[in-house]
Amino acid sequence: MQIGMMGLGRMGANMVRRLMRDGHECVVYDINPASVAALVSDGALGAASLTEFVGKLAKPRCVWLMLPAAITGKIIDQVAALMEPGDIVIDGGNSYYHDAVDQAAKLAAKGIHLVDVGTSGGVWGLERGYCLMIGGPDVAVQHLDSVFATLAPGADAGSPAPDKAAGTAPFGYLHCGPSGAGHFVKMVHNGIEYGVMAAYAEGMNILKSANAGKRQRTADAETSPLENPQYYQFDIDLPQVAEVWRHGSVIGSWLLDLTAGALKSDPGLANFGGRVSDSGEGRWTLKAAIDTGVPAPVLSSALFDRFSSQGESEFADKLLSAMRYAFGGHVEKPKAGQ
Amino acid sequence: MQIGMMGLGRMGANMVRRLMRDGHECVVYDINPASVAALVSDGALGAASLTEFVGKLAKPRCVWLMLPAAITGKIIDQVAALMEPGDIVIDGGNSYYHDAVDQAAKLAAKGIHLVDVGTSGGVWGLERGYCLMIGGPDVAVQHLDSVFATLAPGADAGSPAPDKAAGTAPFGYLHCGPSGAGHFVKMVHNGIEYGVMAAYAEGMNILKSANAGKRQRTADAETSPLENPQYYQFDIDLPQVAEVWRHGSVIGSWLLDLTAGALKSDPGLANFGGRVSDSGEGRWTLKAAIDTGVPAPVLSSALFDRFSSQGESEFADKLLSAMRYAFGGHVEKPKAGQ
Amino acid sequence: MQIGMMGLGRMGANMVRRLMRDGHECVVYDINPASVAALVSDGALGAASLTEFVGKLAKPRCVWLMLPAAITGKIIDQVAALMEPGDIVIDGGNSYYHDAVDQAAKLAAKGIHLVDVGTSGGVWGLERGYCLMIGGPDVAVQHLDSVFATLAPGADAGSPAPDKAAGTAPFGYLHCGPSGAGHFVKMVHNGIEYGVMAAYAEGMNILKSANAGKRQRTADAETSPLENPQYYQFDIDLPQVAEVWRHGSVIGSWLLDLTAGALKSDPGLANFGGRVSDSGEGRWTLKAAIDTGVPAPVLSSALFDRFSSQGESEFADKLLSAMRYAFGGHVEKPKAGQ
Amino acid sequence: MQIGMMGLGRMGANMVRRLMRDGHECVVYDINPASVAALVSDGALGAASLTEFVGKLAKPRCVWLMLPAAITGKIIDQVAALMEPGDIVIDGGNSYYHDAVDQAAKLAAKGIHLVDVGTSGGVWGLERGYCLMIGGPDVAVQHLDSVFATLAPGADAGSPAPDKAAGTAPFGYLHCGPSGAGHFVKMVHNGIEYGVMAAYAEGMNILKSANAGKRQRTADAETSPLENPQYYQFDIDLPQVAEVWRHGSVIGSWLLDLTAGALKSDPGLANFGGRVSDSGEGRWTLKAAIDTGVPAPVLSSALFDRFSSQGESEFADKLLSAMRYAFGGHVEKPKAGQ
Repeated sequence: MQIGMMGLGRMGANMVRRLMRDGHECVVYDINPASVAALVSDGALGAASLTEFVGKLAKPRCVWLMLPAAITGKIIDQVAALMEPGDIVIDGGNSYYHDAVDQAAKLAAKGIHLVDVGTSGGVWGLERGYCLMIGGPDVAVQHLDSVFATLAPGADAGSPAPDKAAGTAPFGYLHCGPSGAGHFVKMVHNGIEYGVMAAYAEGMNILKSANAGKRQRTADAETSPLENPQYYQFDIDLPQVAEVWRHGSVIGSWLLDLTAGALKSDPGLANFGGRVSDSGEGRWTLKAAIDTGVPAPVLSSALFDRFSSQGESEFADKLLSAMRYAFGGHVEKPKAGQ
Repeated sequence: MQIGMMGLGRMGANMVRRLMRDGHECVVYDINPASVAALVSDGALGAASLTEFVGKLAKPRCVWLMLPAAITGKIIDQVAALMEPGDIVIDGGNSYYHDAVDQAAKLAAKGIHLVDVGTSGGVWGLERGYCLMIGGPDVAVQHLDSVFATLAPGADAGSPAPDKAAGTAPFGYLHCGPSGAGHFVKMVHNGIEYGVMAAYAEGMNILKSANAGKRQRTADAETSPLENPQYYQFDIDLPQVAEVWRHGSVIGSWLLDLTAGALKSDPGLANFGGRVSDSGEGRWTLKAAIDTGVPAPVLSSALFDRFSSQGESEFADKLLSAMRYAFGGHVEKPKAGQ
Repeated sequence: MQIGMMGLGRMGANMVRRLMRDGHECVVYDINPASVAALVSDGALGAASLTEFVGKLAKPRCVWLMLPAAITGKIIDQVAALMEPGDIVIDGGNSYYHDAVDQAAKLAAKGIHLVDVGTSGGVWGLERGYCLMIGGPDVAVQHLDSVFATLAPGADAGSPAPDKAAGTAPFGYLHCGPSGAGHFVKMVHNGIEYGVMAAYAEGMNILKSANAGKRQRTADAETSPLENPQYYQFDIDLPQVAEVWRHGSVIGSWLLDLTAGALKSDPGLANFGGRVSDSGEGRWTLKAAIDTGVPAPVLSSALFDRFSSQGESEFADKLLSAMRYAFGGHVEKPKAGQ
Repeated sequence: MQIGMMGLGRMGANMVRRLMRDGHECVVYDINPASVAALVSDGALGAASLTEFVGKLAKPRCVWLMLPAAITGKIIDQVAALMEPGDIVIDGGNSYYHDAVDQAAKLAAKGIHLVDVGTSGGVWGLERGYCLMIGGPDVAVQHLDSVFATLAPGADAGSPAPDKAAGTAPFGYLHCGPSGAGHFVKMVHNGIEYGVMAAYAEGMNILKSANAGKRQRTADAETSPLENPQYYQFDIDLPQVAEVWRHGSVIGSWLLDLTAGALKSDPGLANFGGRVSDSGEGRWTLKAAIDTGVPAPVLSSALFDRFSSQGESEFADKLLSAMRYAFGGHVEKPKAGQ
C-alpha cells in the first residue's frame, strides 16, 4: 500500500527502505532535502514541502512521523490541518503517551485518526525488523496492517508460522489498545530496558572487582579495609564471560549479545566516559508507577544511577561530606584524579 | 571418557543422560537407590555405596557432585578420603565460592584437584545444554574438556563453527580462573538474573495498572488520589505484550520467552501466591559488592523485594504506621483481606 | 489581628486555639456546625455559611483554609468569588504545589493574593507550635507576619533570641518564595520524612533479627540457610535501644523520640498490621526529582516500600515465582499464614 | 574509679578528660608519647610502654581501648597476655561485632572479660556526652557502671530524673547483651545514620533544583527536556530552609542541626568535592540484613550512593553507554568538565 513518511533520520529512512523492499509505495519528506534525495534515488517519491507531501498521498492519507518528541505535537497539528476525515496520522517516535491521548481526542473531533506506534529495534531494525506496539482506533490500525506486517520481524524462521487469527504478537506487532496505548507499552518497555541493562552492568562491575584482593589498598581511617582479600584474587575475562553466558544460561538475551560484542571489541570500554543519557521513557515509566502506586525499586534504581552518572548527585554528596565533617571531624578525601 | 556422578536429582540425572548420549561412560551413585537404578537402566554403571562408587573409577578418578550446598563440603571430604594424588573432584552445585577456595587449598595439600563448575540451564539443560562456568587448576580443567564440551550447548547451529583455539566461550563453557572462580562467576550470573527478572516483573506490574483510572478508588485521607485518571484507561493484554516483545525488541531474552509462556498458560498467575524464594547466590553477590565497594542498587533492590515477599518487612512497616500515628494521629488502614 | 479559618478538623481547630491564646481574633467556619460551635464556645466568632463567614471579615480579608487537598481548589474558587482586590487566601493544607502555582496566577488576575503555607507539626502543633513554609507575594506574607509568628514555635527557650531582621527561620517560619514555594518546600520535607522514617524502621527490623541464629530454620531448597548462626544470638530490647539513642547519639531526632515512645507503650506493635499509607507529598517529591533529573534512591525506596506494604507488589512477585518455576522447576512456598 | 585508656586520639583523649572531670583516675598510654604527655599535664597518670601501663592498674584491671579497628584485635591479645582472671578489656572502637564475639570467647577461656562499647557522639562527646551501647558479661558491665554514667550524657536537664532501676537508657548508656551486642547495636546505629543523612541530602538536592525551569537546557536527543518549566522557578534558600525545619517540624534532628550549621557557614559547600567515605559499619549492617533476610532498601541505597561517589560505578556506567551505542547508535555526551 501507499504510505507517507516524514522525518528521514536513521530510523525513518531505514523504515522506508524496509517498506519499499517489501513492495510498499513510499512518499517521503524531510526538512533536509538531501535526506529526501537519498531515498528518492532508492525509489521513493519525494516532496519538497509539507503541502506537496500531503498532496501526493492517496485517500485515506496515511502519514507516518518519525520525529523528535519535542516537535512531534506541532507537526501533527500542521499535518492534520491539511487532512480530511478518515485520514490517519501515525506517530512512531518516542512521544509521551499523555500527548498521544490528548492529541487523539483533538484529531478525532475532525474525524482524523491518530495511531501511536512504539517502535523498538534501533539501528538493527532494517535487517531484524521492528517490534511495534500500536495504539489507536480499530479501523485505522486494521487499515495499516500490511505496513505493520512489513516493518515487524515476522514469524520466527524455522518454526511453523503461527495462526494470525490468534493474534499478531508472534509476528512482532500488536494493537495494544486505543490511542496512547502503543506509546504506553513502549514506555514501559524502555523502563524495563533500563533495569535489564543496569543488572548486567552492575554484575559486570562486580566481576571486574573480583581481583580487589590483589590491589594495594589505601590504609587510612576514611577507607574501609577489604575484609577477606583471599577471596578476591580472580582476574575475570569479562568479554569471555559475556560470551559464555550467551550459550545456554538463564540470562541470555539480545542485550547480552550486544554486551558481549561491545566488550570483545573494546574490553576496557576506553571509548566511553560513563555519562549515561536517559531519554524520557524511563522517567515517564516511573511517573506512571508513582501515579498508580506500583512499587518499582529496580527500575528507579536504574534511572537514578543514570542521573548520578550525569553528575546530579554532586550537591547531595557534598552535603554528606559536610555532615560527616560536622559530627565527626572527618576530612573528605579528594576525588580520584583531583 | 569416564566420569563418576554423585547426586542424581533432576540436574544430576539429566547431566548423566546428556553425557551418555554423547558416548561418555558414567558411574553413578546416590543415597536413593531408585535414582541409581533409573540411570543404570539407561546404561550407567551403578554403585551401592560411596566406597564402591569411587572404587569403580579409573585413575585419575573424576567425581562430579551435584548436591545441595549444605552438604557438599562434608561429601567432598568423604570422597577425597578415598582418592589419590591426581584425582579430581568437581562441584557442580550452587556452593558458596568461599567454600571452593578453602576446600581447594585443603585438597591441594593431598594432590587432589577441586574443579568448581557453575551450571546454568535449569530444567531445560538436558535439551539445550548447560552453560558452564569453571574454576580450577589448568591440568584438571583440560583433562575434563570433552565432558564440558558435551554438557555445554556447543556452537550455535546454522553459524560457522568458531575457532576453539580462540576460546571455548562460544561453545558454552569457560575456564574462568583458579578454584572458586567458577562459582564466583555463577554467583554473579544469578545476581544479574534476579535483577533482570525484577525488571520484567516491575514493568509488567505497571502495565497491569494501566487501567487504574477505571477502578473505583477509595476516597479517604489515608489513600492518595489518582491524579489524572484519563491517562490510566488501558486494559493491556499482558500475555500478548510479552509475546510481541520477543520479536525484534531490545528486551528480548530467554527469560522473556519463559515469561510469555507462563503468562499465556495462566494470565492471572493464579497458581502463585507471590512468595519469592532466594537461594543464596543473590545474597553472596551483594556481599561481594559490599566487600569490594561496588554499587549494586538494582541487584540489591531485586533481592530485598524477595525478602519483602517473604513477609520480612512486616515489623518495619508496623513501626512506620506507629510513627505516623504518633506524630499525626493517622490510623492505619487494614491490610487487604483483613 | 483578625483571621478567618475554614476547615476545623484537628489541625484547623488547634491552630485557631493557638491563635486565640495569643490574642488574635478568629472567625471560623466549617460545614459541620458542631465544629464551629466548639470553637465559638472557646471565644471564636462563628459563621453558618461561606457568605456569612467572608462577610464577617475586615478588609483586607484573610481566609485560611485547612481542607483536604481534593476539595481545596474548588473552595478557593468559591471564597475568591466573594473577595475583593487586596484580599488574601491562605492554603495551609497538603495541596500539590502545582495547584498553588496555577491558582495563584488565576487569583492574581483579580488582585487577590494566594499564600500557600506548608504546615508541619501534626497533633503536637498546638503545644509545640507549627513549622511553617510559606509561599506568596511579599505584601501578603508580610501582612500575615504576626499570625505566622504565633503559629510557629518561636525562638528556642533558654537561648538568646535571634535577630529577626536576619530572618524568621529561627522562629519556625520562613517565606520561601512566590506562590507555590511553600508547598514545594513542605513537599520535599515530607519526602525526607519518608526516608528518615524508613531508615529507623529498617534498622530496628535488623536489630529485631539479631536472634535469628536461635530460631529453628526451615531446611529446604527454597530457603537460604543462615550462614553463621553464632553471630545472631542477641535478644535486643528494642524499646531500650530507641531510648538510649535519644541521648547523645548522632541519630537523635524527634521521630526517634516518637519511635521510642511507641515502642515503650507497645513493644510488639500489636496495634498495627503494617499497611503504611502515603499521602501524596512523597509521590510528588519523586516526580520533582524525576523532572529535574536529581537522583533520589533513598526517598524512592522509602515510598516504594509503602506501596509494597499496601499489597501492590503482589502481581510482580507472582510473576517472579512463575519465572522461577519456568526455568528451574522451583515450586513456590506458601506465604506465611496460608 | 580507676580506668586505663589506650589510644589517645581525638576520641580517646576527650573521653579521658570527661572521666577526670568527673573524678575518675585515668592511667593513659599511646604509642605517641606526646599524646600521653598532653593528658598527664591535665592530671592523668602516664605510661611509656604497654607493660608499664598494665602494671600501673589496680585489680581487677580495666583497660579501655580506643584504637583503629584494623589493629584492635592484635592489641587486645597483647593486653590480655599481661592480665589475670577477673580483669576487663573494653573495646570502644568501631570494631566488627564478629570480632568481639570471637575475641570474647578466647578471653573467657582465660577468665578475662571483654566488654564492647559502641560509642556515638563524635567530636561533640566531650561536652554533650557519649551515647554508649554496651555488650559483655553482667559482672564486668556492672563493675564499670560509674564509668559509663560519666561518659554518657546523663538524664535530660530540666526534666525529673528517671528511675535508674527501670534501666539506664534514659541516661544515655545501655547494656545491650553479651559480648558483641554493643558493637552490633552501634553497627545498626551507623547503618541508620547513613540512611537518615542520605534522606536529608537527597531532599536538599531536590530543593536546589527547584529553579531548573530558569536554567538554559541543552536541546539534543541525549538530553531529556524539562516537561513543565513553569513549576521549577523557585530559588530556595537552603540554609534558611534547614534552619526553619529545626523548629517544630517532624524532621527535626541533631543531624539537621548540623546540616543547618554547615549550610549557614558555607552555602555552596565549596569546601567539599563530594567523595563520601564509608567506614565499615554501613557495610556490616547490610551484611547482617542479608544474612538474616531482612529487607533494607533504604540503608543499601545510602551505602551504594557513597560507593558511587567514590567513583566505583564508572565501569558499569561505561558499559551502559556501550550498550546504548550498540543497539541505538547513541553517542555518549562528554562528562561535565571534560
